[in-house]
Amino acid sequence: MLYKISEQIFKMIQEGHQILKLNMGEPDWPTSTECVEAAIKAIKDGKTKYASAQGEKELREKIAVLHDSSPDNVVLTPGSKYSIYNAMKILLKKGDEVILFSPHWTAFELIAKECGATPKVIDLSFEKDWNLDFEKIKNTFSSKTKLVIFNNPCNPTSHVWSIKEENKLIEFVKKKGVYILLDCAYRGISFSKMPFVKYDEKVIICDTFSKTFGMTGWRLGYIVAHKNLINEITRLNQISITNVPVFVQAAGIAALDNYSIIAEKTRTESKRRAEACISILKGRIKFNKPMAGFYLFPNLEVDGEKAFDIMLEKHKISIVPGAAFGNYKNFVRLSLCHPVNVLEDACTKLIQTVEEIK
Amino acid sequence: MLYKISEQIFKMIQEGHQILKLNMGEPDWPTSTECVEAAIKAIKDGKTKYASAQGEKELREKIAVLHDSSPDNVVLTPGSKYSIYNAMKILLKKGDEVILFSPHWTAFELIAKECGATPKVIDLSFEKDWNLDFEKIKNTFSSKTKLVIFNNPCNPTSHVWSIKEENKLIEFVKKKGVYILLDCAYRGISFSKMPFVKYDEKVIICDTFSKTFGMTGWRLGYIVAHKNLINEITRLNQISITNVPVFVQAAGIAALDNYSIIAEKTRTESKRRAEACISILKGRIKFNKPMAGFYLFPNLEVDGEKAFDIMLEKHKISIVPGAAFGNYKNFVRLSLCHPVNVLEDACTKLIQTVEEIK
Repeated sequence: MLYKISEQIFKMIQEGHQILKLNMGEPDWPTSTECVEAAIKAIKDGKTKYASAQGEKELREKIAVLHDSSPDNVVLTPGSKYSIYNAMKILLKKGDEVILFSPHWTAFELIAKECGATPKVIDLSFEKDWNLDFEKIKNTFSSKTKLVIFNNPCNPTSHVWSIKEENKLIEFVKKKGVYILLDCAYRGISFSKMPFVKYDEKVIICDTFSKTFGMTGWRLGYIVAHKNLINEITRLNQISITNVPVFVQAAGIAALDNYSIIAEKTRTESKRRAEACISILKGRIKFNKPMAGFYLFPNLEVDGEKAFDIMLEKHKISIVPGAAFGNYKNFVRLSLCHPVNVLEDACTKLIQTVEEIK
Repeated sequence: MLYKISEQIFKMIQEGHQILKLNMGEPDWPTSTECVEAAIKAIKDGKTKYASAQGEKELREKIAVLHDSSPDNVVLTPGSKYSIYNAMKILLKKGDEVILFSPHWTAFELIAKECGATPKVIDLSFEKDWNLDFEKIKNTFSSKTKLVIFNNPCNPTSHVWSIKEENKLIEFVKKKGVYILLDCAYRGISFSKMPFVKYDEKVIICDTFSKTFGMTGWRLGYIVAHKNLINEITRLNQISITNVPVFVQAAGIAALDNYSIIAEKTRTESKRRAEACISILKGRIKFNKPMAGFYLFPNLEVDGEKAFDIMLEKHKISIVPGAAFGNYKNFVRLSLCHPVNVLEDACTKLIQTVEEIK
C-alpha cells in the first residue's frame, strides 16, 4: 500500500496536480553542499566507471570505524533497502519465518513474502507506548524462525527503544541462534543521541545515507555483517546492480566526514517540526510522542483509509493509512518533512478530516 | 569467473598494482560532456529526491519512441543487468529451463541458476562463424523452456547476426509460445548500423547506456516489454532499489538527445581499435572478425586460463579466460577499450604468451 500510494502520487504530480507530500520520509531541504560538491567533483574527475561490487575501500573504511568492524565486513548498496532485500534473500528460504515488530515498515513484510517466507508479526500496543513484550517474543519463536528484524528508531512511529532494551533483544535473539537485523535508518536523527551499533557476528547492521543526510534520491546504503554474508551480498551485487556509482559513494564519504554537523542540523529541525505538530494535535488527536525525526503516527480513532481519501481529495495532502504498517487501521502516518507553517496547516486539516468522518 | 576476476583486479589496483584492464568492456574515454553537464545541473537543481520506481516519464517517453512502444512499456533500472535479473526472477521458477547461445555473457547463466532454473546452453561453433543452428535450437526446446536469451551483437565474440536471422529466431521462439529476451547492450556500436528492436508483447528488449555512451559506472539501463512484466519489475524496484537516481536519468536523457553523434564516435573509434588488433594478430592467432565494438574472442589453441595467468603475472594485463563464457577453454576475451598503441602492445604480448605456453 505504501508503494502503491507513492507511485500514485508521483504520477499525479507528473500529471500536474499540486499535492503536499506527507507520504514520504524525505527531508525537503537539499542535500548538504559538501556532499553535492564531492559528487560533482567525482563526476568531473571521471569517476564514472565500473567499480567494486563491494564498494569503495575508503568509504568502507569510514563505515567500519563507526561500527567497530573491518572494511571486509561492509558492503555498499543502492539504498539500505537493497541491503535488507539481499540479506533477506540470502537468509530466508520458502517456509522460513521472520519476526517483525509492528507497526512496521512495509518493505520488511513485502520482501519476506517475496522470499517465500512467512512474516510473524508481533503487534505492539499504542496504549503500552510500543513496549516490547518479551513473553510474546518468546512465544513467537519457532523452529522455522530464521531472522528477527528490529527497526530502532521505528518507522512509522518514531519511537525509540532504549539501548538497554535493544541489547536485551539482541542477546535474547542471539541465544536462540538466529540472526537479528537492525535497521538503523533513523538512528542519526533520534532526538536524544544514540550510539552506533557495534559489529557482532550474529547482528546485521543496515543503515542508509537517505535520512540523516537528506540523500534519499542518491540511493546509498550499507550493511555491516559477518563476512560470509557480505561476500554473498557482494556476489548478488555482481549479478544484479554491478556497483553503486563511485560518485554517489564520494557524496557518502563527504557525508560521513561532516557527520556531526549534518546530523545535528537534521535532528534539531526535525524536533522543531515535531513539536510544532504536537502543539496543534495535542488534546485533539491521540498520539505517542515522537522520539526521533520524520514521522508522527497518530491514532485517529476513525478509519485511516477514509482519512487518507479526504486528505488527498479535499485538501490535496497525501498521507499514509496505518494499514500500510500492519493492524493499525485507525492510524495514519504523517511525514513531518516540511516547513512548520505547512505542517501546522496540514495538522489542522487532519483534525477537520477526523471531525468530518466521526 | 568473470566477476571474480573483476573484483580481484579492482582489489589489486586499490592495493597499488599497475594493471592494464582488458577484462572489462568499458570505454577508456570520459562520459560525453552533454551527459555530465545534464547530471551536474540536475544535482544542483536538487533532483536528488525519491522518484518513481518505474522511471522518469521524460526518459521513458524517449525510449518508447526508439522501440515503437508506449512509456507504460518501459522501466528504468540501475544498469540493464538489473532489468535482466528482475525479468528472469519473474519469468523463471525452480526447474524451468532457459535457452542461451554460447559463448555467452556470464551473468545470464549465473542469474538463471540464482532463479533455480537450468540454463540449456547451445554451443555455437567458432569454425562455423557462430552460425545459429535452428535444428539444434528446436531440439533444445522442452516443455520446461520458459525463456530464450539472445545477445546481438554478442558479448564476448562481437559477432553480429543479421536482422533477418534475428527475426527468424524471434518468430521461431514466439511460435513456441515463450518469451525471448533480446540483450541489445552493444547494438549501438555495431560496425554496420542496426535498427532498434520494435516492441512486441512476446519480446523483452533490454538495453543499457553503459557501452554506447561510455556510462558504465552510472548504472542506467532499461527494459521495454509487455505491461504486465513492466509492472512486476516496477514492483520489484519498489521493494529493492526504490528508483534510479533522477540525476542519472538526466544524463540518460542527454545521451539520447545526442544519440547519433555519440554512437557514431564510439562506433568509429571501436572499429579503428579492432582493426589495429586484427592487423597484429592476423596469421598468428585465430579469431573471427569482430562486427561490433569492444571485444575480441580469439581461439588461442592453448589453455585460456594459462594465458590469463601469464598475461596478468608477467605482463600486468588482465584478460578473461574463455571458460568464463562457456565451453571455450582455449579462448580468451580481450576488451579493446584502450588506445591503439596500448592494444597493439597487448596483442604482441598475447602472441608471446601463446608461444610460451605451446
